[in-house]
Amino acid sequence: MTEQKLPAATRGPSDHTLRDQIVNAAMEYFSHYGFEKTTVSDLARSVGFSKAYIYKFFSSKQEIGEVICASCLTQITQRLNAALEEAPSATEKMQCLFQTLTVAGSELFFRERRLFDIAAAASRDRWSSAERYEAWLRETTVAILREGREAGEFERKTPLDETAAAVYLVLRPYADPVQLQAALDTAKEDASRLAALVLRSLAP
Amino acid sequence: MTEQKLPAATRGPSDHTLRDQIVNAAMEYFSHYGFEKTTVSDLARSVGFSKAYIYKFFSSKQEIGEVICASCLTQITQRLNAALEEAPSATEKMQCLFQTLTVAGSELFFRERRLFDIAAAASRDRWSSAERYEAWLRETTVAILREGREAGEFERKTPLDETAAAVYLVLRPYADPVQLQAALDTAKEDASRLAALVLRSLAP
Repeated sequence: MTEQKLPAATRGPSDHTLRDQIVNAAMEYFSHYGFEKTTVSDLARSVGFSKAYIYKFFSSKQEIGEVICASCLTQITQRLNAALEEAPSATEKMQCLFQTLTVAGSELFFRERRLFDIAAAASRDRWSSAERYEAWLRETTVAILREGREAGEFERKTPLDETAAAVYLVLRPYADPVQLQAALDTAKEDASRLAALVLRSLAP
Repeated sequence: MTEQKLPAATRGPSDHTLRDQIVNAAMEYFSHYGFEKTTVSDLARSVGFSKAYIYKFFSSKQEIGEVICASCLTQITQRLNAALEEAPSATEKMQCLFQTLTVAGSELFFRERRLFDIAAAASRDRWSSAERYEAWLRETTVAILREGREAGEFERKTPLDETAAAVYLVLRPYADPVQLQAALDTAKEDASRLAALVLRSLAP
């Protein structure tokens, strides 16, 4: 389900505000009680809206989760974009991609808000927000590789597609909340080690 | 808990045989009904031993799981050792490590016996069999790197420890049943792509 399909888009600003209120209340609720084992009824009871009222705006719990998830992932991509813009070379951009992704993901999914539950469901069940995020990460990887090849920082013998697919595979465990959780204690150090390995593989 | 601590070691051949019977029956049982949600009582009822009889040989369900897990992981290490012996160079050994690990793990955990449940518990709860397996994989990685450095196939500028730690991080998702499951459809192709990236990073 894409955001364009959500009913709120055609319901005007007043409904928008009500919809945002539900999303904010749901985000607070899910970050305390988890996403998987709670229902729309639980949520409605806790936040003081009627279940029918929530269903006026969202067809399912997943639809609420999608909006929360999309908002979290947008925070990560914005943070990554800002960090990448400051990195002066493709080499530093590649290090930055591994580092910032790991730090931002760790903070968002595990520390600040404990939205791990939603992120894990999104990743496991291939929600559209998770798929868009993955596509964005792949494109960002390709853009850094292309920049590095053009600047003579990276080798050009290996087909770009092949290199991009392989680098993305190395990066993926740090983009996926479930895999990130499995090695959270060492994730930052591991990501920096992997960036160094990837950069050695890209040497001209 | 190590195998040396198990009581059967001091009970003579007859008990050994009885213990093996229980392990074989348990392996069959767990591969059908799973490991996590079954109990020693379920197992006893199904295989026709009394619960007390099983507890004569094993102090807990995990202890039975440990023996099964150790036996599975031994199968993988034997298969890997045989494949590595046939690989004529360190470069081919590195490709072989990624390929064989992925194929053997996929077959053992997901196709042949569906022992995924036990392997996942072993990995998540850091059973001693899983830790020994991880240590063996790390040592094998170091041995291949050392061979390649001595033969002039691999670069020697990066400290060996650093390279080994990074290569192991790339390899790890294919050694871990939970991570392997997340991308099982493309695991073989992915592993080959990652081996190629690792080999580019090792180029002298």
